[in-house]
Amino acid sequence: MNAEIITIGDEILIGQIVDTNAAYIAQQLNATGIVVSERASVGDDAAQIMRSIEQALGRSNIVITTGGLGPTKDDITKTTLTRMFGSRLVNDPKVEEHVRRMLAQRGIEFNELNRGQAMVPECCTVLFNAHGTAPGMWFERDGKVVISLPGVPFEMRHLMEDEVLPRLKSRFSLRAVVHRTMITAGIAESMLAARIAAWEEALPPYLKLAYLPSPNIVRLRLSAYEVEGEAVSQEIERQFAKLYDIIPDNIVGYENDTAQHNLHEFLRERGLTIAVAESCTGGSIASKFTAMAGASAYFLCGVTAYSNSAKQTILGVRPETIERYGAVSEQTAREMAEGVRRISGADLAVATTGIAGPTGGSEEKPVGTVWFAVADARGTTAMMRNSGTDRGQIIDRATAYAIEMLAKRAAAIAPQAKKTAEDK
Amino acid sequence: MNAEIITIGDEILIGQIVDTNAAYIAQQLNATGIVVSERASVGDDAAQIMRSIEQALGRSNIVITTGGLGPTKDDITKTTLTRMFGSRLVNDPKVEEHVRRMLAQRGIEFNELNRGQAMVPECCTVLFNAHGTAPGMWFERDGKVVISLPGVPFEMRHLMEDEVLPRLKSRFSLRAVVHRTMITAGIAESMLAARIAAWEEALPPYLKLAYLPSPNIVRLRLSAYEVEGEAVSQEIERQFAKLYDIIPDNIVGYENDTAQHNLHEFLRERGLTIAVAESCTGGSIASKFTAMAGASAYFLCGVTAYSNSAKQTILGVRPETIERYGAVSEQTAREMAEGVRRISGADLAVATTGIAGPTGGSEEKPVGTVWFAVADARGTTAMMRNSGTDRGQIIDRATAYAIEMLAKRAAAIAPQAKKTAEDK
Repeated sequence: MNAEIITIGDEILIGQIVDTNAAYIAQQLNATGIVVSERASVGDDAAQIMRSIEQALGRSNIVITTGGLGPTKDDITKTTLTRMFGSRLVNDPKVEEHVRRMLAQRGIEFNELNRGQAMVPECCTVLFNAHGTAPGMWFERDGKVVISLPGVPFEMRHLMEDEVLPRLKSRFSLRAVVHRTMITAGIAESMLAARIAAWEEALPPYLKLAYLPSPNIVRLRLSAYEVEGEAVSQEIERQFAKLYDIIPDNIVGYENDTAQHNLHEFLRERGLTIAVAESCTGGSIASKFTAMAGASAYFLCGVTAYSNSAKQTILGVRPETIERYGAVSEQTAREMAEGVRRISGADLAVATTGIAGPTGGSEEKPVGTVWFAVADARGTTAMMRNSGTDRGQIIDRATAYAIEMLAKRAAAIAPQAKKTAEDK
Repeated sequence: MNAEIITIGDEILIGQIVDTNAAYIAQQLNATGIVVSERASVGDDAAQIMRSIEQALGRSNIVITTGGLGPTKDDITKTTLTRMFGSRLVNDPKVEEHVRRMLAQRGIEFNELNRGQAMVPECCTVLFNAHGTAPGMWFERDGKVVISLPGVPFEMRHLMEDEVLPRLKSRFSLRAVVHRTMITAGIAESMLAARIAAWEEALPPYLKLAYLPSPNIVRLRLSAYEVEGEAVSQEIERQFAKLYDIIPDNIVGYENDTAQHNLHEFLRERGLTIAVAESCTGGSIASKFTAMAGASAYFLCGVTAYSNSAKQTILGVRPETIERYGAVSEQTAREMAEGVRRISGADLAVATTGIAGPTGGSEEKPVGTVWFAVADARGTTAMMRNSGTDRGQIIDRATAYAIEMLAKRAAAIAPQAKKTAEDK
């Protein structure tokens, strides 16, 4: 079963936004057994929207569009689809009721434009948008389906999960699309390809291999489209197992699981708690954990101690430590980690202090210098890592290093749980 | 002059990567006076690549592709273009020399696959890739141009800047594409549209208005395609000036300015300091400020007090306050703001406490309920705002509301500085 994704909006064509919706929809469709054969982005232009949907319908069974459903004049997707399907707009009392309630909650008056949002094409099935005022729409023609979703990412995501995917599963008979990715490190793409050439040559024809290089990393992805999922997954496991004999030292992981998500699950399973003391990462570590539902089970507190005074009064870093070694030093990092652990009562604490730049660097401590410390009941360890040259890059990398340190320490103080996690 | 962008790679169609290349290329082309009329993404499939390029050439003068130029078997863009243009691959000694030197620097042996990277279609102009081993290619046919660039983002960017844009400027006679964005806050999209309807109606026909909503913010963009740049820019300034009479209190900036960036500048100018106490926003407010270079001048500290115990021991919230009113309450928010202001010594402090969900809501305090408080030397004010239904949305909106409250209070305690900022 093939689908195409069309994202609509001038803001995409001028590069004002990065189109993250298409990637999300593609992931979800693949996971459901639907092959995405093409993606396109077009402007808020009726002729262009119609032409691109018609072309996509000529090639594929399912077309999903996002965007152009807002209440203002520049949004024309709904009227265009209404015309394309030879229908007319009618009021949907249930949608109107919902729009009125949502606006009332936010203290916004219901006006003519909102009334327009409650109008839907008579021929479509309305997909209820619990999180926004623009309903999704499902059209059918000659056994093919066109689905229109709002462009606001979280509204689109909820609609995909709650409405679109369940309906696609019951509407079409779907097989499986399987993607598995092995992450390799420390070997250049061309050398890796030469090293595993015989293995690649011997792959079964239904498995497609892709190389995805990034700094120091090459991802190897095996993909199979519209197959028996379980049997193919097992075959991929066997193929990956063979790679362990060929490149044993270069395999560092699988898939896209983020380090914070793995640690989140681990801490919840194990009942361990954490706290963080941040200087240069400025709240980024805390926000990575607190973005995940259920973080309150283990995340006790984070202190972003930007000023020296905050490091002292809140975290209890000694003034003479900062005076003697500086705010960016092993000693300060250690006292920050110990301090936040003490005031929060957490099992584990991590601290960062560094120079995110662009100014503030010196020959001895250049921009990018970051000290990390992790504290638990048994003691504190610290390390320094140069984390890059650009402020955003330094914050992101230092955040990643800190989470990696926390995860290692969590595994060390909870060896049993570690074993369980590895066995999975 | 119209262009289309085609990004090539199965990893885009399965959603394994977000396509940031297309947005970057679109920005650069717009800034150069070239209208991007459509974008597409296709897989590593020769027939599909050829078909999409031919279709794009039928509509536009310029087609830019990225991806599929790596040394491994899954990358087929170069051979496909060679076939499409009826050419053959020949060795380019300059490219080979460059590839050999780049690999030698990284200690990688030059092998058969790298030799393939030095082969280029005889009919194309080679675009020298100083930062990678895959050369860019420039093809011409019937007065139209096809440009193939590598998919690695920083290699693609350097090639765009150093090779592609200068060549396009000299090859085609280009006019201007003008985009200007005004940022409004605190007014919902439908209310804003109703308020400025007459202004919108009276816009000159060559100016296209777009509404771009995000949490608590609506961006208004005026765009004009293939015009006299300077005259149109002046007309846009005049139109934006008129909006100052209609929505004087809602205009917070231009282009990519963010509320936190404006406040950042304001606090630095005025010498005011801030601190934040976060519960449901989980470090997000702190990280918004600390992401900006120079934040250490005014950002003293942030406390993410997720646990009740952290609220009490670090921020000094009284146990009886939490017991009597709950952690999500006006009283707790007030004591959090006052507490973080006291321990940090900041001029201004903001606090958030709410229910980010998906669990933890009740009838009285549903998911999305967030209490905010701002404290300064003259006292503390608090408000409640329902901030949405989805965890990510609630965190983002509550963060935006908190920054807005801080900004208003900062302006109120520093009226002179406010005036200066408005005069700009």
